[in-house]
Amino acid sequence: MKIVSLETRDVRFPTSRDLDGSDAMNPDPDYSAAYVVLRTDDGLEGHGFCFTIGRGNEVCAAAIEAHAPLVEGAELDPDDAGGFTARLLHDSQLRWLGPEKGAVHMAAGAIINAAFDLLGKAAGKPVWRLLAEMAPAQIVDLADWRYLSDALTPRRALDMLQDAVPGRAARTAELLERGYPAYTTTPGWLGYADDKLVRLAREAVADGFTQIKLKVGADLADDVRRMRLAREAVGPDVRIAIDANQRWDVGAAIEWVSELRPYDPYWVEEPTSPDDVLGHAAVRRGVAPVKVATGEHLANRVMAKQMLQAGAVDVLQIDACRVAGVTENIAILLLAAAYGVPVCPHAGGVGLCEAVQHLSMFDYVAVSGTTENRVIEYVDHLHEHFRDPVRIVDGRYAAPRAPGMSTEMRAESLAAYAFPGGEAWRI
Amino acid sequence: MKIVSLETRDVRFPTSRDLDGSDAMNPDPDYSAAYVVLRTDDGLEGHGFCFTIGRGNEVCAAAIEAHAPLVEGAELDPDDAGGFTARLLHDSQLRWLGPEKGAVHMAAGAIINAAFDLLGKAAGKPVWRLLAEMAPAQIVDLADWRYLSDALTPRRALDMLQDAVPGRAARTAELLERGYPAYTTTPGWLGYADDKLVRLAREAVADGFTQIKLKVGADLADDVRRMRLAREAVGPDVRIAIDANQRWDVGAAIEWVSELRPYDPYWVEEPTSPDDVLGHAAVRRGVAPVKVATGEHLANRVMAKQMLQAGAVDVLQIDACRVAGVTENIAILLLAAAYGVPVCPHAGGVGLCEAVQHLSMFDYVAVSGTTENRVIEYVDHLHEHFRDPVRIVDGRYAAPRAPGMSTEMRAESLAAYAFPGGEAWRI
Repeated sequence: MKIVSLETRDVRFPTSRDLDGSDAMNPDPDYSAAYVVLRTDDGLEGHGFCFTIGRGNEVCAAAIEAHAPLVEGAELDPDDAGGFTARLLHDSQLRWLGPEKGAVHMAAGAIINAAFDLLGKAAGKPVWRLLAEMAPAQIVDLADWRYLSDALTPRRALDMLQDAVPGRAARTAELLERGYPAYTTTPGWLGYADDKLVRLAREAVADGFTQIKLKVGADLADDVRRMRLAREAVGPDVRIAIDANQRWDVGAAIEWVSELRPYDPYWVEEPTSPDDVLGHAAVRRGVAPVKVATGEHLANRVMAKQMLQAGAVDVLQIDACRVAGVTENIAILLLAAAYGVPVCPHAGGVGLCEAVQHLSMFDYVAVSGTTENRVIEYVDHLHEHFRDPVRIVDGRYAAPRAPGMSTEMRAESLAAYAFPGGEAWRI
Repeated sequence: MKIVSLETRDVRFPTSRDLDGSDAMNPDPDYSAAYVVLRTDDGLEGHGFCFTIGRGNEVCAAAIEAHAPLVEGAELDPDDAGGFTARLLHDSQLRWLGPEKGAVHMAAGAIINAAFDLLGKAAGKPVWRLLAEMAPAQIVDLADWRYLSDALTPRRALDMLQDAVPGRAARTAELLERGYPAYTTTPGWLGYADDKLVRLAREAVADGFTQIKLKVGADLADDVRRMRLAREAVGPDVRIAIDANQRWDVGAAIEWVSELRPYDPYWVEEPTSPDDVLGHAAVRRGVAPVKVATGEHLANRVMAKQMLQAGAVDVLQIDACRVAGVTENIAILLLAAAYGVPVCPHAGGVGLCEAVQHLSMFDYVAVSGTTENRVIEYVDHLHEHFRDPVRIVDGRYAAPRAPGMSTEMRAESLAAYAFPGGEAWRI
C-alpha cells in the first residue's frame, strides 16, 4: 500500500489542573500527544504519536512534519517495514539533530508506530499478534543492527527467536485467555494527599494488582511517611516500587533508598540521569537487594545495550514512544532477552498503555517466552479518548483483539483537546 | 539588563553543491544555523545558533521559539548567568523532550551562547576573556552540577580554578601574542578527488599546520589509498587524524583502523555511536597506540563524564553548539581537566570555529593552563559571513579582541541565506 499523506495534530490534556502525573521532576504535566495520521491510497489510516508533557509538543509536531517528504508517496510493504524504518532514521540531515535521540527520534518513532498501526489494520490483526506470527528471519529484518554486534548479533537473535517458535501457539492462547500482568502507579503521584494515597493503594489491591508504585525524591521525610502509609495499606505481600524520576546524584540515590529500606521497596526507578550507565551500575551496587529499574528515557538501543552490558539494571523499562517505535523496541527486547533481564514497560501518560502492551505481548509469545517478574505499568488516565482502550481485568492487561496498535484516538477527543483551539483550552 | 525579545531565523548555506563537508555518514550537508537574536532594553543584541546540516533546521528554530516565554522579559545579570541557564534547562515540560539532548537541548545552547555574546558585549570583552577574568567561585556557579558529584564536586573544581589563578595574566598575554594551536580538516572531505586532497594537504603544511584530518569509513580500499597519499604529501612529522563519523560497530572499527596503521594515524575520531561509552572504551583498547577522540555529538555533560570515567577517550572534543552552550561546556572542561584528558574542540560547519575558540582560550587561561596536545579544529568555510571571523595565523587561532562571542552573522548574509526565501535558494 502507498502512503499518500502525513498529517500532524497538537493534542494536549490539561492534567496539571488535578496534579495527575505529578512527580519530583515533573510537578505539573499536561499530558500531550504530537499526533500523526498516515493515510493510504486504499483508505486505511495509521495513527501514532509522540508523548510529551505539554510545552514543546509543537516541536515534536514540527519534527514529525520534517519527515513528510520521506513518507508521502512511500510504499509500505509488510515485508520491508525494516526498510521503511531505516529510510526514516538514516536521513543524514535529520539525523544530525540527534543522532537518534530527542525530538527528531521521537518523531520517527511516532511515524513508525503509525506505520505498524496501518500494517496491523491491513492484516486484520492487533500488532502484538502481527509481530508474533512473523517468521523469525522477518523479525530480525525489522531491527536496525548497527552498533549492536558487540552485544548481540542478528544470527544469535535468530536462534533465540527460532527457539521460541514451538511455544508460540500455547502462549498466544494463554494470553488471549488470561492477559498480561500489570502494576499500577495510580495511587502514588507526588501531588496527592496522604488520604488519597491510602485510599487508592487499598483500591489497587482490591482490584487485583500485586504491585503498586510511589513517586519519591522531593522530600525525604514526606517519602518515609508516604512509604510507611502505603506499606500499611497494602500489607507485606504486595510489591511497592519507588520512582525518583531522575532526581538524584549517585551518592544521594544510595542514601535516600537506604532510608526507605524498612518499608521494603521492590525497585527504585530512574534514580539518576537516564544517560548515566555507569551511575546506574554504581547505584545498583549500592542499593542491593533493592532492584534498579530504568528505561523510559533511554534515547535508543545503544543506551539500552550499555545498561545491560554494564549490569546497571535489574529491570529494563521500555517506552513505546521515545525510541524509534516498534522496530527499535524489537531490538531492545531481543537485547534484554539475550542478557536475561526482565522488561517491565513504562506506560501511563496518554496512550502509552495502549501502545506498549503490544510490545510486551509480542515479547511473551515470540521472544522471552515468559511473564515471570514482568509487569506492564498501568495508570488509570485518559483511556476514554482511544477507540480501542486498554482493558484491565483482575490486575492484568486483556490482550487487544482489534486490528492495529490501539493508538487511534477518537475524533471527538482530537477535536476537543486540540491545542490551543480545542474547547478544553478555551476556559 | 532585560531581554525584551527573542527572534529566530532559519539560515542555510547550499554547501552540498560542492561536497564541502562530505563524510561517511553525511554525504551532502547544507551547513545551516537555527539562529537566535536576543534584544535588550539597552539596545544590545546577543547572537547565537544551533548548527545543523540542513533539513530539520526548522525544528531547532521551533525549539528555540519554545523557550521564548522563559527569555522575554527575563533579567540577564552577569552574576546570575548560571541561574539564567538553569531556568532554561529546568523547565520540566520542555525537558521531557530530551532530557538534556536533541533539538530542545541544542536550542537552549543557542540561547545560552547568545546570552554570553550579550554579556561579553555589555562588558566590552570577548567571551573567552570575560570568563577567564571571573573569580573561581563565579565560574563554579555557572555550571550545572547535577549528576556530576561521583566524578567531580564543585569544591574540587573550585580548588582547580584557584590553582590556575596565579598564571592567568601570563597566559592571557601569551594568547594575545601567539594565539591558540589549530589543525585543519580542509583537505580531507570524503567527496574530494585525490589530487584535490594532495594539493590541500600540501597547502595545509605550507600554512603552518602541524595536524590535518581525513574523513574515512565509506570504503576501505579508498581510505588506504587516500591515507597513503596524505602521508606522502605531508611527510612523517605532521599528524594525520582520521574521522569515521560514527560509521562502525566496535569490531569493525578495530579492524579498519588496523588496516590504516602503516600510515600512522594520530587519532581515530567518532569510530562508533557517540552514545556508546563502553564501545569507545573497547575500541580504545583495540586500536592503541592510535588514540581515540570523540565528543562533537555527546549530548551533555553526563555523557562526557562517563567517557572520562570509563577511560574511553584519549582526546575529548567539545562542540560549542550541541550541549547547553557556554555553561555546560564549562562543566565539561572542568571534568576533562580533572581527568587529565586534553580537549580538542570540534569545529567547522558554520560558525563553530568562531564560537568554540572562546572556550578553548578560557580553558587555557583559567582551567587546564596548558595547550600541550591541544588543538582546535579549523575548516576554511563560511567565515566571511561573520562580523568578527576567526583569524588563523601560522596554523594558530588569533585571540579574538572584539566584545562578544564572535557568533554574530553579517546582516547581508542573514538575508541572502534565509531559507527558503533568500536569494541563495532562489536558483
